[in-house]
Amino acid sequence: MTATMSKERSADTSAVLDVQAVMRRLGERAKAAAEALATAPSESKNAALRGAAAAIRADRAAILAANAKDVAAAEANGTKGAFLDRLTLDEGRVEAMEAGLEAIAELADPVGDVIAEWERPNGLKIARVRVPLGVIGIIYESRPNVTADAGGLCLKSGNAAILRGGSESFHSSTAIAAALAKGLAQAGLPEGCIQLVPTTDRAAVGEMLTMTDTIDVIVPRGGLGLIKRVAAESRIPVLKHLDGNCHVYLHQAADPDIARAVALNSKMRRTGICGAAETLLVDRAVAATLLPPVLDALAEAGCELRGDEATRALDPRVLPATEADWDTEYLDAILAVKQVDGLDAAIEHINRHGSHHTESIVTEDAGASERFFARVDSAILLQNASTQYADGGEFGMGAEIGISTGKLHARGPVGTEQLTSYKYVVRGHGQVRP
Amino acid sequence: MTATMSKERSADTSAVLDVQAVMRRLGERAKAAAEALATAPSESKNAALRGAAAAIRADRAAILAANAKDVAAAEANGTKGAFLDRLTLDEGRVEAMEAGLEAIAELADPVGDVIAEWERPNGLKIARVRVPLGVIGIIYESRPNVTADAGGLCLKSGNAAILRGGSESFHSSTAIAAALAKGLAQAGLPEGCIQLVPTTDRAAVGEMLTMTDTIDVIVPRGGLGLIKRVAAESRIPVLKHLDGNCHVYLHQAADPDIARAVALNSKMRRTGICGAAETLLVDRAVAATLLPPVLDALAEAGCELRGDEATRALDPRVLPATEADWDTEYLDAILAVKQVDGLDAAIEHINRHGSHHTESIVTEDAGASERFFARVDSAILLQNASTQYADGGEFGMGAEIGISTGKLHARGPVGTEQLTSYKYVVRGHGQVRP
Repeated sequence: MTATMSKERSADTSAVLDVQAVMRRLGERAKAAAEALATAPSESKNAALRGAAAAIRADRAAILAANAKDVAAAEANGTKGAFLDRLTLDEGRVEAMEAGLEAIAELADPVGDVIAEWERPNGLKIARVRVPLGVIGIIYESRPNVTADAGGLCLKSGNAAILRGGSESFHSSTAIAAALAKGLAQAGLPEGCIQLVPTTDRAAVGEMLTMTDTIDVIVPRGGLGLIKRVAAESRIPVLKHLDGNCHVYLHQAADPDIARAVALNSKMRRTGICGAAETLLVDRAVAATLLPPVLDALAEAGCELRGDEATRALDPRVLPATEADWDTEYLDAILAVKQVDGLDAAIEHINRHGSHHTESIVTEDAGASERFFARVDSAILLQNASTQYADGGEFGMGAEIGISTGKLHARGPVGTEQLTSYKYVVRGHGQVRP
Repeated sequence: MTATMSKERSADTSAVLDVQAVMRRLGERAKAAAEALATAPSESKNAALRGAAAAIRADRAAILAANAKDVAAAEANGTKGAFLDRLTLDEGRVEAMEAGLEAIAELADPVGDVIAEWERPNGLKIARVRVPLGVIGIIYESRPNVTADAGGLCLKSGNAAILRGGSESFHSSTAIAAALAKGLAQAGLPEGCIQLVPTTDRAAVGEMLTMTDTIDVIVPRGGLGLIKRVAAESRIPVLKHLDGNCHVYLHQAADPDIARAVALNSKMRRTGICGAAETLLVDRAVAATLLPPVLDALAEAGCELRGDEATRALDPRVLPATEADWDTEYLDAILAVKQVDGLDAAIEHINRHGSHHTESIVTEDAGASERFFARVDSAILLQNASTQYADGGEFGMGAEIGISTGKLHARGPVGTEQLTSYKYVVRGHGQVRP
């Protein structure tokens, strides 16, 4: 018994050492690649992105075969529903990855942009110039397409990426990363620009989160469990991406048609994305007239409704909501419905229960929407529009790596610009400070 | 013995609980104040700043008396030199605090600024609007004037501040904070807008660094020891402010007069500030002609010189430098001097040994300075100008809370704009996402 344990322990220790060594090598390679990338011409980066898209196209069969392996393993483990859907690739989704990389190649290169410049009375010419962040560590879950999307966005913005995908999508991500590597090689850029962590060992994440010498930023993309682990363990600055507990608020001055359309689309267009609405608030004074057609539309679309007493009194289909419902991100065809006593009560509910992601007010009253905009503490606030517009593409920013719910550095959609920093360049002719 | 120990332990425990309770109350008050401040009109904030300046003026005698107590205690502990200088207030320094607060009142209010706005093809109007960060925790060391400067900057940018000053300056900071509170009260703003941690117990810092529910950002201002403790312990995002290991590099195409003036001013204007140069690099090919007048000027100004062999061969006053000198921030009248084999060697030395703060190249060759600007990974890069220009005021940004050496959120001088975040405000007329 003792002998076995000691043997196990020694095997564990060597595995830990292996993971540590593997991760450190990845970090060093990424850092060297980031130095080269920081001054790489746009043409090289774009050539790598287009080459990667072409390689994915050429490797479609291999990528789909690798994905089939992942899906079969997940099914054998009893996985189903939204998780399995996120994991599964098909021709259309692979094509979307290719198109995504080509679209990133078309975006403007943010690196080297002069964000601002001015001259001081003493003749110093000051410019604030956009530069890459350095090395970005991205930790994500089941979607294999994040490998291409995130790798491509980091490359375009001049950053080296270390990608740690979910273990369920390991074969898929490995096949995609191989295609990305072909694009880099064709463009003469170092392989270290985009690296996939080559192990599913969870210790690799822990190691990654302490690599302060080589990784500049950690971007977690996934569920609350992942985000909380990263926030608790990371010694590296984190760009937080939380799934959204998003709200639609029907103000007493709402247009009934817009109320119905926005509530329905915010909830049901796609239920699994972070911009999907999870709670519908409605002014008590107008609920009896405004709410029934909205609830009809939702119920007809297959949405489960959970409401407070007042809402249940209006509509017997509505199941009873508990306190926990106000804090729940269903990411499913379920909506919590609550009546509130006016604008300030709605604002208070959202600030207390929301995740500071995206909220929409439906109203024809500009005073009400301005107050909502000023007082709700969320990344994205809309008036008379679906919460599902919370998306970098819909904002016109091109692709995005996610929606940041933190306030530091980047808030809202994180695209190529948000993956950069800046430096100050000051040109003088011998000035010294008095 | 056992009884004593147990008694001590219980006293410790209750002290710990007290500190925790005190800090949490501070946090809650700050959070409530931040909510009020986020939508406070500029006039109220400016009235509070001017009122605070007036209160400091009225309380000068009390502030100087409190400071005298701090200085006497520090002297009794054997403190001297730069540390004692930073701690000491006089009429001029108190006046500078008053003028600083008045200058902050004159600055533009960043909150509510529309940073960008655009319309999408579907008619959605998107605006990126500047908002405060929330609650900022500032941890600093001996300079009591940081209490007024940092408190004022946070207030102007709509943030509540929790200030934790050094224990050595506790009486001074308490007197200054009392004056700030008068300004807030006169303007009808909550006292929680600017709070000084009312204890010198070091446990308060540890507590502060875990208050993720109430503090949004931590700004450490001080020496490497403080910054490292904060970076290691903080569960809250940190805006890093490191003292600078700044370089002046004399390129082979340097103008000799500019070389002498910039090197001298960068080192000797004030030796204790983070933008002071600590290492002088010089191209080996021109060292014999370029360097002697520079070293003469420095030596005449009272600077101790430590150099590599080649430099010592040129000038017998130069003491031998060790490897450690290239990594040392003296913050004193000491300069390390090294000869390098051209531009790329200089860049490599700076990227390896520097602290990513501020570096200056002296050259008439624009190609060389452009390469230096592109490849040195520091917040501020200058050509033919003193590193001592690394300062928010000199950049025209008004006051600053320090120079950020991190790449996330803010890099370089951190003024009122850098203490803000933004939100997206989207105005529609019923748009739903296809």
